[in-house]
Amino acid sequence: MATINDVAEKAGVSVTTVSRVLNNRGYISEKTRQKVYQVMDELNYQPNELARSLLRKHSNVLGLIIPSVEHPFFGELANAIESVAYQHGFKLLLCNSQLDSAKEREYVDMMRRNRVDGMILGSHTLEIGDYTNLNYPLVTIDRRIGDIPFVASDNENGGALAARLLIAKGCRKIGHLSGNMKLDMLSNLRTTGFEREARQEGVEFVTYQTELDVFDEQIYNEIIRKMFTEHPDIDGVFATSDLMALFVMKWCRTFGKEVPRDVRIIGYDDIGAASWYMPGLSTIRQPIKDMARRAVELLLEQMDDKPVERETVLPVELVEREST
Amino acid sequence: MATINDVAEKAGVSVTTVSRVLNNRGYISEKTRQKVYQVMDELNYQPNELARSLLRKHSNVLGLIIPSVEHPFFGELANAIESVAYQHGFKLLLCNSQLDSAKEREYVDMMRRNRVDGMILGSHTLEIGDYTNLNYPLVTIDRRIGDIPFVASDNENGGALAARLLIAKGCRKIGHLSGNMKLDMLSNLRTTGFEREARQEGVEFVTYQTELDVFDEQIYNEIIRKMFTEHPDIDGVFATSDLMALFVMKWCRTFGKEVPRDVRIIGYDDIGAASWYMPGLSTIRQPIKDMARRAVELLLEQMDDKPVERETVLPVELVEREST
Repeated sequence: MATINDVAEKAGVSVTTVSRVLNNRGYISEKTRQKVYQVMDELNYQPNELARSLLRKHSNVLGLIIPSVEHPFFGELANAIESVAYQHGFKLLLCNSQLDSAKEREYVDMMRRNRVDGMILGSHTLEIGDYTNLNYPLVTIDRRIGDIPFVASDNENGGALAARLLIAKGCRKIGHLSGNMKLDMLSNLRTTGFEREARQEGVEFVTYQTELDVFDEQIYNEIIRKMFTEHPDIDGVFATSDLMALFVMKWCRTFGKEVPRDVRIIGYDDIGAASWYMPGLSTIRQPIKDMARRAVELLLEQMDDKPVERETVLPVELVEREST
Repeated sequence: MATINDVAEKAGVSVTTVSRVLNNRGYISEKTRQKVYQVMDELNYQPNELARSLLRKHSNVLGLIIPSVEHPFFGELANAIESVAYQHGFKLLLCNSQLDSAKEREYVDMMRRNRVDGMILGSHTLEIGDYTNLNYPLVTIDRRIGDIPFVASDNENGGALAARLLIAKGCRKIGHLSGNMKLDMLSNLRTTGFEREARQEGVEFVTYQTELDVFDEQIYNEIIRKMFTEHPDIDGVFATSDLMALFVMKWCRTFGKEVPRDVRIIGYDDIGAASWYMPGLSTIRQPIKDMARRAVELLLEQMDDKPVERETVLPVELVEREST
């Protein structure tokens, strides 16, 4: 049976380095990390097999990767997932990826070392293959990565509902703040639904792309400024997140546009702030608690080798407040 | 050496029950749990000693107990703690206690079984003894539990700064929304500082107690309504959290009081929403990132058996925006 010395020798690194890779400690270049894992695979090296199985048996820990728990939507989602996980006897490891692929990789490596029983991905910066060859219970939120089961709200219908409300209220030119359309995000279906509906109704619209995962007031304000400067006649805005919608609201007030008289605004998510802002923000409510529940259940079903639904799309709800 | 069978027999329960207590699985009454732990202590039973030490050696996991990551202050704090922990090679287990002592106890039990290397307490519902006899690295945020090292912002000075600003702006009667003064929370020093300053300056004030850890719009609104109904001549408000202050702002606007003309409002924390609300909320900024950094460092110092500062009080900063 291969030892840690065999791995070190064949990989051309020190035993300390192998140990660091295994224990995820200290700085290791990506190249070295890959090399060590490759040699471990070749030699079929089993690091502390007993420990691994014991760890596995006793882990009862789920991992959650999100961009940042500071973002209100992800804060509410993390809260709901932790609650459901707890009800099933699991603890939750929190990873704020901050869209940092090195950090995300560490969590995926940890998974490889059997330190969590399953992982929920609400952010991904790595290549599809990095996830799909893990062979561990995985669930994604709002993104399609290979064959990994996903949970999403009915983004397309949500986008259509938003368009219909603004049009029914008389908007003639709608500004839409979408996510980054280059990413294969299910949340981009909000844009699909919105644009289809606006086209069908013959209402003019302009779409500005943002980074949905990023929470940066300055970036938001820059895009909002650009949109209103290039199209000062916009009389309705559909933002793909409530947070962006609230920044649009602030922008409008700063520049003397009254909401909803001059500009009607609708967001997406229904975070807490949507109801306590003044005026209250109309929005498309994501069923956060149901999404959390299904995500955890999908992990449990995989652990029990049960057949698993690949696509879970949960209904959204139009919540009308004062901003429209 | 005692076996799991010995423990079960002496405790008068099944082996399955002992196993459940050890693995924290399924429903176990608090009475049974205590009995099993007591017998384990009496028999000096070491469950899977090898597993425990391996787990211990490899844990690299810190635990964080907060009321709810959904609350913006705790969301930002959790985000900052996770970042610092990650920089030191540690992962973060998130526990939203929801002020549920059974849930909090499970996390403390987990600690006992060596599943985390240290724990940061931003919430506590258990008795002091439940923590102090753990003999594990512990740090609290904003609360004093026995001899456990704590990290806090300079609450007393923060309260005084808030009072001074409102008085300098001409407020003659200040409503103060404090935390629950029966709890031994360091954040209650905000009230001490505020009241001392107001008394010194001879300015009238009324204090209404709330549950700082609770995030419930209805409860907040009820207290705010009561305060303004009983004291309609209040022309300044110091709320012990920004979230409460934002609800006061909303209440004022709903009932035709203009901010800051009729009522000047200042909060505490400087959460993100304080800057993006309209009007911007004046507040006392807690150094969240520094608090997170110190909390993690204090755990690391304990792990390395270094001498540890028992009291860490970090400076606050007055942030003046439009609400005052």
